[in-house]
Amino acid sequence: MHICKFFCNFAAILTTYMICNDLHTALSAITSRYSNDQIVVVKDASVSFESAYPTLPLECTETTKSLETVTRIWDFFFAHDLTRRGLVICVGGGVLTDSAGFAAATYKRGVDYINIPTTLLAMIDASSGGKTGFNYSGLKNSIGVFAQPVETLICPQWLTTLPTEQFLSGYAEMLKTGLLEKSLWNQLLQYDLDTMPIEPLTPLIADCIAVKERIVASDPNEQGPRKALNLGHTFGHALEEQSLRSPLTVHRSPLSHGFAVLYGMICELYLSVTRLGCDKAPLQQLTQLMLHYYGRPQCKCSDREALIRLMQQDKKNERAAQINCTLLSNIGEPAINQIITPSDASEAWDYLFSL
Amino acid sequence: MHICKFFCNFAAILTTYMICNDLHTALSAITSRYSNDQIVVVKDASVSFESAYPTLPLECTETTKSLETVTRIWDFFFAHDLTRRGLVICVGGGVLTDSAGFAAATYKRGVDYINIPTTLLAMIDASSGGKTGFNYSGLKNSIGVFAQPVETLICPQWLTTLPTEQFLSGYAEMLKTGLLEKSLWNQLLQYDLDTMPIEPLTPLIADCIAVKERIVASDPNEQGPRKALNLGHTFGHALEEQSLRSPLTVHRSPLSHGFAVLYGMICELYLSVTRLGCDKAPLQQLTQLMLHYYGRPQCKCSDREALIRLMQQDKKNERAAQINCTLLSNIGEPAINQIITPSDASEAWDYLFSL
Repeated sequence: MHICKFFCNFAAILTTYMICNDLHTALSAITSRYSNDQIVVVKDASVSFESAYPTLPLECTETTKSLETVTRIWDFFFAHDLTRRGLVICVGGGVLTDSAGFAAATYKRGVDYINIPTTLLAMIDASSGGKTGFNYSGLKNSIGVFAQPVETLICPQWLTTLPTEQFLSGYAEMLKTGLLEKSLWNQLLQYDLDTMPIEPLTPLIADCIAVKERIVASDPNEQGPRKALNLGHTFGHALEEQSLRSPLTVHRSPLSHGFAVLYGMICELYLSVTRLGCDKAPLQQLTQLMLHYYGRPQCKCSDREALIRLMQQDKKNERAAQINCTLLSNIGEPAINQIITPSDASEAWDYLFSL
Repeated sequence: MHICKFFCNFAAILTTYMICNDLHTALSAITSRYSNDQIVVVKDASVSFESAYPTLPLECTETTKSLETVTRIWDFFFAHDLTRRGLVICVGGGVLTDSAGFAAATYKRGVDYINIPTTLLAMIDASSGGKTGFNYSGLKNSIGVFAQPVETLICPQWLTTLPTEQFLSGYAEMLKTGLLEKSLWNQLLQYDLDTMPIEPLTPLIADCIAVKERIVASDPNEQGPRKALNLGHTFGHALEEQSLRSPLTVHRSPLSHGFAVLYGMICELYLSVTRLGCDKAPLQQLTQLMLHYYGRPQCKCSDREALIRLMQQDKKNERAAQINCTLLSNIGEPAINQIITPSDASEAWDYLFSL
């Protein structure tokens, strides 16, 4: 038997985040680097973004984050003879940047793309970290690849016209990031969610991205430390998927991602307090925010079994049907790979539903 | 304007190639590492491979190397609750390992897979180097990702029952590798293609993989030096795609990949001699091998325009419609990024068709 081992260092990846007030100037600086190549735009049809490049507008909802949408994007690339040296500009929320990012990352084995997130959630979450993908087989983001955009342009002006529900959805992911870094958490609690001013929000956005990217850089393919970012997502994804399947049993149909994560964080903080002795303050603070701004999740008790089944199928699980989630030992101290039983999960759902 | 740059080192990738006489023992050593996780097999339906794991047999031709096949593989993974920690065993030729490798690399953003190539072509080419994908929009491998298998098991025994045409197809890729390293080229010319003995072939297989992997390791995402491996493929892919579109105008329908690459190498060596002053010997030696073993490509002159159009759409081109190919300054001295005009291409096709 003859064994050869080959060692291969993947090229280091550099992603640049630019927080800018003048989208036009920032974008020109990037597109000038591709002046000899085809540039195309994939955008959320509801976003107003004008350019001279061929543009594919897409209706964007969780149900259109599908293989059919990805094939439409591939077909658009082929129709415009996009080469490997070209550039794809993705403009929209997370549904758009995730699916267009996946299409770009797999087209001819990968073409450069940049993200221009237009929602708070996409700024904080979807357009950093390099996760791309789409929903398949009834499961969220169940097909995808890790692929970094070459640049992400964060323009807080998009937020001035963002509906309150979408703003709150993004803020929930910021709160999750805050739970991973104490000083950020305290700042986030002081932000005025009643008037949602943009100016004091901008440095908080930059801090959230910096915390996330520091974690991602230490573990890009989510083998260990990056799992901290999954806080709230084991319970949250189940709620979100259940809302896609039977939208009538929850109060928003489908439930916004950030709302689902907020409810998921409450469940997971409950387990953090009861199982790991985490301080009660963040659970109480999050619960107050939920009651003031987000509202209760209007689930029926009969949903609980379905939710637990969905948790058992979660792609974050490392063993079949064994629920793996991220809890907190304390603020800023994530405890990854916590295996919880269906009975633990049931108790946490009951706590949430009883609030 | 606020710019943050984050630097992210992707984990180094280690691929192990094992040349083995006892597949069962070699496979057990790998599967024992996944004893707590789901293991599934995706195999070419025509290959005899028995195991206790859930198995998806697939009919494998260039026309089934499609998105439909990839979705069947994803559905199979979901049906068996494969987790991210599971293992996919891919058994078959390049069509199988490319499409099953892509399905594994994108399922839940990537699950481990191993390749057990059963054809000479797959041993030499498809199952090393980390290229996965499928044919889309009428173009070969036009959707895909770079993803390394965790292990590749090369068992030369598979070759004892391989049809002659498939053996010759694989040998053409070995010849291509030989053109990138002079000592290997001379050894390959001495191999007895009349009787095709396995024992002297085995070290040649190992050498070809070593040459390829050394090149891939220096440039995994094909930004530069890896393009040397595309020798013969700019002309070859066009022939292969044309044969998929109108199979009656070429003598094998569809044309085997290695045959197409051999014809492509003759065109590209012709340009290497006439444009770069490459020594004539390898062109003459390859032509002799073609006439003795492979036969002439039976193309009509009317195919030439269609072939050139296909070359202009090749995903290896860096500028739209500008044909980019790899030529040789001499044996072992590839010249990448050679831009050729449609008239150069036409002249090279004429040379091939006149032989």
